[in-house]
Amino acid sequence: MGSRLRSIDWDEGKFRFIDQTKLPLELVLVETEDYKVLIDAIKKLKIRGAPAIGIAAGFGIYLGIKNFNGDDKEKLKVVFESVCDEFARTRPTAVNLFWAIDRMRKVFYENLHLEVNNLKDKLLNEALSIQREDIQMCRQIGLNGAKLIPDEAGILTHCNTGWLATGDYGTALGIIYTAFEQGKKIKVYVDETRPLLQGARLTTWELMQRGIETILITDNMSAYLMKLGKIDCVIVGADRVALNGDTANKIGTYNLAISAKYHNIPFYVACPTSSIDFNMKSGDEIPIEERGSDEIVEIMGKRIAPEGVKTFSPAFDVTPNHLITAIITELGIIYPPFEENIQKIKEENKSHD
Amino acid sequence: MGSRLRSIDWDEGKFRFIDQTKLPLELVLVETEDYKVLIDAIKKLKIRGAPAIGIAAGFGIYLGIKNFNGDDKEKLKVVFESVCDEFARTRPTAVNLFWAIDRMRKVFYENLHLEVNNLKDKLLNEALSIQREDIQMCRQIGLNGAKLIPDEAGILTHCNTGWLATGDYGTALGIIYTAFEQGKKIKVYVDETRPLLQGARLTTWELMQRGIETILITDNMSAYLMKLGKIDCVIVGADRVALNGDTANKIGTYNLAISAKYHNIPFYVACPTSSIDFNMKSGDEIPIEERGSDEIVEIMGKRIAPEGVKTFSPAFDVTPNHLITAIITELGIIYPPFEENIQKIKEENKSHD
Repeated sequence: MGSRLRSIDWDEGKFRFIDQTKLPLELVLVETEDYKVLIDAIKKLKIRGAPAIGIAAGFGIYLGIKNFNGDDKEKLKVVFESVCDEFARTRPTAVNLFWAIDRMRKVFYENLHLEVNNLKDKLLNEALSIQREDIQMCRQIGLNGAKLIPDEAGILTHCNTGWLATGDYGTALGIIYTAFEQGKKIKVYVDETRPLLQGARLTTWELMQRGIETILITDNMSAYLMKLGKIDCVIVGADRVALNGDTANKIGTYNLAISAKYHNIPFYVACPTSSIDFNMKSGDEIPIEERGSDEIVEIMGKRIAPEGVKTFSPAFDVTPNHLITAIITELGIIYPPFEENIQKIKEENKSHD
Repeated sequence: MGSRLRSIDWDEGKFRFIDQTKLPLELVLVETEDYKVLIDAIKKLKIRGAPAIGIAAGFGIYLGIKNFNGDDKEKLKVVFESVCDEFARTRPTAVNLFWAIDRMRKVFYENLHLEVNNLKDKLLNEALSIQREDIQMCRQIGLNGAKLIPDEAGILTHCNTGWLATGDYGTALGIIYTAFEQGKKIKVYVDETRPLLQGARLTTWELMQRGIETILITDNMSAYLMKLGKIDCVIVGADRVALNGDTANKIGTYNLAISAKYHNIPFYVACPTSSIDFNMKSGDEIPIEERGSDEIVEIMGKRIAPEGVKTFSPAFDVTPNHLITAIITELGIIYPPFEENIQKIKEENKSHD
């Protein structure tokens, strides 16, 4: 590990991360053994992206008890639980965060009978597993999806779903990196992704770091690009997928899906099967978070709209299944009819029940 | 005149304009009798919008010869031509600018036999006519289009096509103002219109000045709003309309038209018949200006993307006629088949030939 730049990494006893709030103008790497630095980094979005947050929490919990001295298991439990609590309070809506904390907690209590130093090792190993599994899963999504990318493809993507947001590779961008590594000459069109500009700030930067031809556009240019024949497929990530294939993702995804359909361009969703909500029959049930007006009326601290203007700012939208060509997961590519084929994935992969 | 705030106006011997570069954070009114101030204002986009520029040039040319002393017609001609030239160089691609200069020049040479003071009066009258005719034309577009606006409508608009850009009312926004004056309770959703943010900076401000409920969104939220049932129609302006109804307008218009069609929402184009290019058979012939990368990688001076990133930045896109429900002009509403019905307008209105 550590040989190629990752968003977050573990390197000889130290946790290292890219401060994403400084991108794309500055690459600032922070190296620390202090879990408080990680708490702060997650709170302040220096570390962002659900999988990356989960991985950081794993290593952070290990760092939180690493310097515990003595053999008093009761005292250790108090420290451990307090560290877990601190991480849980950083981003209270991040599902991967709680999943990672639960994994660490399980390992802790299952091994509480061991010597403290051995227990610490178990926790570090679990954090490393969370990281390794995430990278493998992204890698597998990439390998599965790359089959769908023609040589010399122009690919449109939205928001940030790459190595900055995950252990490595990413989901939608993982497919792009894999196709590129396979020698396919691709061009990636990145829409800026207002309001928070993850496309302009992060996706362009991480694609360019890995040598991929990257063209930035504003969100409202996508349909015209499709008309010009510049786009061979659209690949986006997913925040949540319902059992019928309806997909919630960053606001603007639905716009892209409609335009892709109109121009007869394949529209792919890339996500781990853990993003499929097997309790949700359709996208109508997915709650959509509404954000405050600051993100609309200000851009990076600059006010762009009149005082007192009303705004409407949904964080996500739902793309209905009939606009989706395929859903690319680590377990394979799911094609329509999604109701049926998602069920099949569920049955083949009982651990999700 | 002068009783209600206009973007540009003539008031007791003085020209007054809103410095649009200061909006929406500050309302700065500039009053001047110096044509050089107008030259500078047009160059620096303090005055913008094709019709507003044309009107400003009319008054500016008058101001340019207003203080000419004596009776020497040859000297006066030199001054007049030099002032016209200065205006022609401010925004070399603005069609309305040249049209206004031509009108002023025609009046000048037709009345060169008059006393200098009478000639000056003729020029002022012509400038006032250009202003009055523009306001009447916008008013008529508004009255024609308002018939299409249901009470309690949610209306989506793009870019800036209102009283800031014209003598008063505006084209697409003229319809909205007229419907509002008729007592219709309307809500206007304004998309910010990246890259230059005319929607966020100008359209929200001018609608709010006139007391209309205004909700600002980012460009990529429009389809989701349509799905939620918040949008009853879309109204946009036009930079150029081809004989078959294909319409070039600010980038992002085509996106909106595709989404409107998908959701079965009427999509209206509002423009004077002078925007119809009777020499152009279809939108395929309309040249699309490509802009530099600054407008994409910087927002109001703040850099948002990595150094060296490529961009693609078309200023306009073309919406094909089959996505357009109707074209609203000062001469009436044109419905499909546009090929036929635009030809009819042409025949009824020979002055365009």
